[in-house]
Amino acid sequence: MNQSAASPPAFRVADLIRRKRDGGALSRNEIDFLVDGVTRGTVPDYQIAAWLMAVVLKGMTGEETASLTNAMLHSGEVLDLGFLPARKVDKHSTGGVGDKTSLILAPLVAAAGLYVPMISGRGLGHTGGTLDKLESIPGFRVGLSVPEFNRVLEACGACMIGQTEKIAPADRKLYALRDVTGTVESPYLICASIMSKKLAEGTDALVLDVKTGSGAFMKKEEHAVFLAELMVETGERMGKQMVALITNMDQPLGRMVGNALEVVESIEVLQGGGPRDLRELCLELAAWMFYLGQASKSVAEGRQLAEQTIASGAALKKFRQMVELQGGDPTTIDDPSRLPSTKHRVDVLSPRAGHVSAILCEQVGTACVILGGGREKKEDSVDPAVGIVVYKKIGDKVAQGEALCTIHCHSDAQAAAAKKLLEESYTITDATVGHKPALIHRAIHKGGH
Amino acid sequence: MNQSAASPPAFRVADLIRRKRDGGALSRNEIDFLVDGVTRGTVPDYQIAAWLMAVVLKGMTGEETASLTNAMLHSGEVLDLGFLPARKVDKHSTGGVGDKTSLILAPLVAAAGLYVPMISGRGLGHTGGTLDKLESIPGFRVGLSVPEFNRVLEACGACMIGQTEKIAPADRKLYALRDVTGTVESPYLICASIMSKKLAEGTDALVLDVKTGSGAFMKKEEHAVFLAELMVETGERMGKQMVALITNMDQPLGRMVGNALEVVESIEVLQGGGPRDLRELCLELAAWMFYLGQASKSVAEGRQLAEQTIASGAALKKFRQMVELQGGDPTTIDDPSRLPSTKHRVDVLSPRAGHVSAILCEQVGTACVILGGGREKKEDSVDPAVGIVVYKKIGDKVAQGEALCTIHCHSDAQAAAAKKLLEESYTITDATVGHKPALIHRAIHKGGH
Repeated sequence: MNQSAASPPAFRVADLIRRKRDGGALSRNEIDFLVDGVTRGTVPDYQIAAWLMAVVLKGMTGEETASLTNAMLHSGEVLDLGFLPARKVDKHSTGGVGDKTSLILAPLVAAAGLYVPMISGRGLGHTGGTLDKLESIPGFRVGLSVPEFNRVLEACGACMIGQTEKIAPADRKLYALRDVTGTVESPYLICASIMSKKLAEGTDALVLDVKTGSGAFMKKEEHAVFLAELMVETGERMGKQMVALITNMDQPLGRMVGNALEVVESIEVLQGGGPRDLRELCLELAAWMFYLGQASKSVAEGRQLAEQTIASGAALKKFRQMVELQGGDPTTIDDPSRLPSTKHRVDVLSPRAGHVSAILCEQVGTACVILGGGREKKEDSVDPAVGIVVYKKIGDKVAQGEALCTIHCHSDAQAAAAKKLLEESYTITDATVGHKPALIHRAIHKGGH
Repeated sequence: MNQSAASPPAFRVADLIRRKRDGGALSRNEIDFLVDGVTRGTVPDYQIAAWLMAVVLKGMTGEETASLTNAMLHSGEVLDLGFLPARKVDKHSTGGVGDKTSLILAPLVAAAGLYVPMISGRGLGHTGGTLDKLESIPGFRVGLSVPEFNRVLEACGACMIGQTEKIAPADRKLYALRDVTGTVESPYLICASIMSKKLAEGTDALVLDVKTGSGAFMKKEEHAVFLAELMVETGERMGKQMVALITNMDQPLGRMVGNALEVVESIEVLQGGGPRDLRELCLELAAWMFYLGQASKSVAEGRQLAEQTIASGAALKKFRQMVELQGGDPTTIDDPSRLPSTKHRVDVLSPRAGHVSAILCEQVGTACVILGGGREKKEDSVDPAVGIVVYKKIGDKVAQGEALCTIHCHSDAQAAAAKKLLEESYTITDATVGHKPALIHRAIHKGGH
């Protein structure tokens, strides 16, 4: 260690920065050297910052993106789940409003015999976070140690935790630097950040749900497709089974937005009910998870397996088991009214008769944050009980004075700002508007399904 | 001061970086804020580095370039030469091989009644530095204080010193960061760096000699023209009289390359002799200095004035006076053989008969560095005596075994590597080759001369 610190560096960092600045590519060894320098603090932040900006403006090749992902992945602990007797599959979503699919998919897929080792994040900005939703279940622990994680996974097939300090430390350091140097918005850096964390779980296959629309980070479908293709290519270069579904986020997914509310709606889907768009997306994502996890011979067969696993009650039972193993109160699954809720309700009424033609979806997410259901800063705590129940979605007919949605809150005063945002987020027109076309725009997959 | 340190910053740096990344422009206040942050150390280097890379890849507007120049200029001391009774003019060259024009122009222009407050640099890489050349005159002091500088300037009209710590400290800090972050090569940053230092001299007019060719930093004429136009525009935005001459550096200027050797050749020109290309360029640069300094009604008249000032002996006398006032031994001007010289000579012979069709000019400069006449690193010291006398230039006819140039050195062994470089730098062909066309490609000036 001392010896290596004393020996001259393998590469001149300024040369690597200049090469990227001029549109060239770095080798795997060169990228390893930079990322190791980030992790150990041996390459100064100002050189990393200049390189990051050059990457934002000049891009990276597929090989470079995979090298960066690999270097970030191996900057920390990589879980070894080789002891499990079946394939491991996971799903990652780029985030949206009302997106509670993880809560449904983990137990659903585990109930059919695959393993779902899921490491998730917290909400930030207008999007909710899986960990916040799970923590609205009294007692639920997302901060398990690796041995505890392995035990739960072995016992019930699914376990959902947060990122530990030991996973991809280079990503945390790079992200902190990107945040203050205007270098967040790069598909290459976003891909490496997501994939390095996801692959640290030790999964065999990964289904990506890449959102596009007014409530997504990528408003334009072409940007979502670009990132999706990059992530699929990167995962495949690293020996993983990959697919990305490009899905719509022009309006909240399902009806419920808010932490405990989204657990309630997840239970509805696991019970065989729930809103059609949410159920449809979950079945499609599960179908791909089954197919890539080799639990089905085709995606269509995977879809049937998903429907059967819900219909038999096995998926819901699995959720109850996982909640109990992670310290949560399982009676809340049997009786969701035991979950945190607010006493107060405020309806948002339609100012006129007509048809819902658009919803500013990001604004609905922001309304939930304002209520205390999400975070503006990382340090903020969240209120599990508050949220929004959306009745009217794009294409729906409304009468004047009919409720568009209902705010779950603690008082009228608390709801005021959120109410204004929600009122402004709806566009009601005279003309009939079609219901939002297919939630799933396309699947990006090597096999070409 | 404490209060301003405690108050929140005026701008979010990450927002400014993002704006530049996306191709937008920053306001004067925003650039002032960044440069002040560099000078005072209140904006972290990693944010500055990201902004610099965004500038390299996205460029700046003319207004931004002037704002940056102005902010860097005012980060330190700006000389006030208002006490002088005539106009102040200066010349800046972007650097080349054998470029000793400053040594000739300062006394020549001062001898005709204008003031030349000249702050110069040291040699780095393949190009020589004015300060190193002056210091080959025994006793010559380039490190004068501002009061000493003012006194010499008032007494004889010309004074040549090095950059003090107090001039443009933001430029020094930015340059140190650019050097290690791959952000040196940007015309906008180069322009601001040059102009902020030059304008700190308190000059009224500035003649720029922008070199292009194999021995220049800008090999391509289009890059030289771009930088020249940027510097002229920037100077004019700051209220200065400006012109830029685009001049050729495909071969060394004059015959002598090396510190004391270049002083010898400068004295030859001031005596009315010297090689034609060097004399021609000096007369043209002086003509513009006279014209912009209002000592002549036209550039042509300025040229006549320059010729007369040399012919009368006034220019040489002025050089002797300046040398004496700055502590140098004036008898070396009367008798240049008293300047440092080497006992040993090594000729570089032509391997064949023919015509010189090309010279790798940068390599000639590097040969001088290898002899000890220049610097590879800032910390290196230079040998005033060594150098190269070039006999054959592009278009010249040579016989087999005829000397192309002579190395001034201390031993054959010391000359070996330089000799090899010089041999390789000459291309001799059968076909007749025209002498290098006009040294001066064009003048870039608002008036359009």
